[in-house]
Amino acid sequence: MPAVAYVNGRYGPIAEAGVSVEDRGFQFADSLYEVVAVLNGRFLDWEKHLWRLRRGLSALFIEGLPSDAALAHIARRLVGLSRYADGLLYIQVSRGAGRRDHPFPADTPATLVLTMRRFDFRQRLPQLETGVPAISVPDQRWARCDLKTTGLLPAVLAKQEARAAGAFEALFVKDGTVTEGGSTNIYMVTADGVIVTHPLSARILPGIARDTLLDLAREAQMKVEERPFTIEEARAAPELFLTSTTAPILPIIRLDGGAVGTGRPGPVTARLGQLAWAEIGRQTGWKP
Amino acid sequence: MPAVAYVNGRYGPIAEAGVSVEDRGFQFADSLYEVVAVLNGRFLDWEKHLWRLRRGLSALFIEGLPSDAALAHIARRLVGLSRYADGLLYIQVSRGAGRRDHPFPADTPATLVLTMRRFDFRQRLPQLETGVPAISVPDQRWARCDLKTTGLLPAVLAKQEARAAGAFEALFVKDGTVTEGGSTNIYMVTADGVIVTHPLSARILPGIARDTLLDLAREAQMKVEERPFTIEEARAAPELFLTSTTAPILPIIRLDGGAVGTGRPGPVTARLGQLAWAEIGRQTGWKP
Repeated sequence: MPAVAYVNGRYGPIAEAGVSVEDRGFQFADSLYEVVAVLNGRFLDWEKHLWRLRRGLSALFIEGLPSDAALAHIARRLVGLSRYADGLLYIQVSRGAGRRDHPFPADTPATLVLTMRRFDFRQRLPQLETGVPAISVPDQRWARCDLKTTGLLPAVLAKQEARAAGAFEALFVKDGTVTEGGSTNIYMVTADGVIVTHPLSARILPGIARDTLLDLAREAQMKVEERPFTIEEARAAPELFLTSTTAPILPIIRLDGGAVGTGRPGPVTARLGQLAWAEIGRQTGWKP
Repeated sequence: MPAVAYVNGRYGPIAEAGVSVEDRGFQFADSLYEVVAVLNGRFLDWEKHLWRLRRGLSALFIEGLPSDAALAHIARRLVGLSRYADGLLYIQVSRGAGRRDHPFPADTPATLVLTMRRFDFRQRLPQLETGVPAISVPDQRWARCDLKTTGLLPAVLAKQEARAAGAFEALFVKDGTVTEGGSTNIYMVTADGVIVTHPLSARILPGIARDTLLDLAREAQMKVEERPFTIEEARAAPELFLTSTTAPILPIIRLDGGAVGTGRPGPVTARLGQLAWAEIGRQTGWKP
């Protein structure tokens, strides 16, 4: 079976998987999601994704997600059905379906959807060598960007603008500060070699790849500062890079058309790239 | 047939109507909606709803909505199937379904969903006599509240908070200013009898009921000012009220637990209530 889906107890081809037109995920973006990297048939950072999902559900008062063990069972069965060794496992939980009305419905079970699609992580290796271009856009999002909700239209518009500009990512700028990317966390490296990224707050998503990367950097005795930095600092920085589940680390070599540093990936990002991919290999046994 | 739905060419019971788990409405809130009041089998302000929907689709570059005539045909047929004389016609257009990726997909047709459910507008008449309580909450929404997108989680949370407080509506407050309600536009009446409401901008939805009400007020030689007003002004105002498709006009008689004016509906709101319901009767022939 190629791409597959699970919806509230049923497994099948993704093309046949649906939710109610009155699902609150569809009508209200009243839902949360996770994207988990599957490499060599194993889940990368599974526990961290589950922790973040449960944190979000708790913040939104959405109840009824199966136990960690049951969710892992569903996920493993879905990956098995797909027969893909490498891919993206998508998990979405909504507050369920019911007659349209803003407040929480009573006695409505949550909707649980998982999908598994193939994804080739090898495409990231040449990009790690060449780097990718980015643009900056105003951050027009709501005040709770720490919650991984499906209210993603601002990110859709930002990433569409990036694609139209021939860029890989759009950097959100709020009050002059680079918060994060459309679907990534963003970092600069200072002239002193310090890795700087926006601190955890309601303005950014607590990225799983971010968490892993900062741990790796600190373990390697590299200097890390979690503090806001301006778009001007970013423009002047010798290195910029991004991290996400689908792009564990990628150098940003152009910003709004101007070169970042030398216009080629820098040494700090390169070293972090080695560490990040070694960690992926360690967790999953994946080899390019 | 009771509640019914239309999805991309198919009519049927709402309980059987679904969209793909990969619909962009479900995964990205990449969609827009309208709620049209159906009274006496007729649509209230149909042209205005269509205008607003097309304006939003244009802003989001979503193409493929049927012609006005085709859409009216679908809507009429759906209402006919439901056999309801009074109800709410819900229309949602998403950018379609496809492999999950933020930027706009190529060659993906939009998803068009309509539902028709019964709604008894008579419930608003006693509420017009008694008034309803409201609370205020911080406006945490994104920067484009003029677009009627399904990214409604902030409104869901606000309206849930209102319900938990025993209130009918939550007033969003941004930078000290009352922008609008969770699903309504908000007005105060000054001591001089001037009707004040937030001007059209990216901070509020251009409400259809708002548009109609301001026209009615001006035709009746009542004074109208479209300007921002603070939550303190609102607390001190002799009258507050709200408008929406499902509540053409309702007095707000308590705000955050304190009485508004005398704590009973005021004369300006009462007069506007008469005008609003007379207009509904004029357009649709509806009688309580």
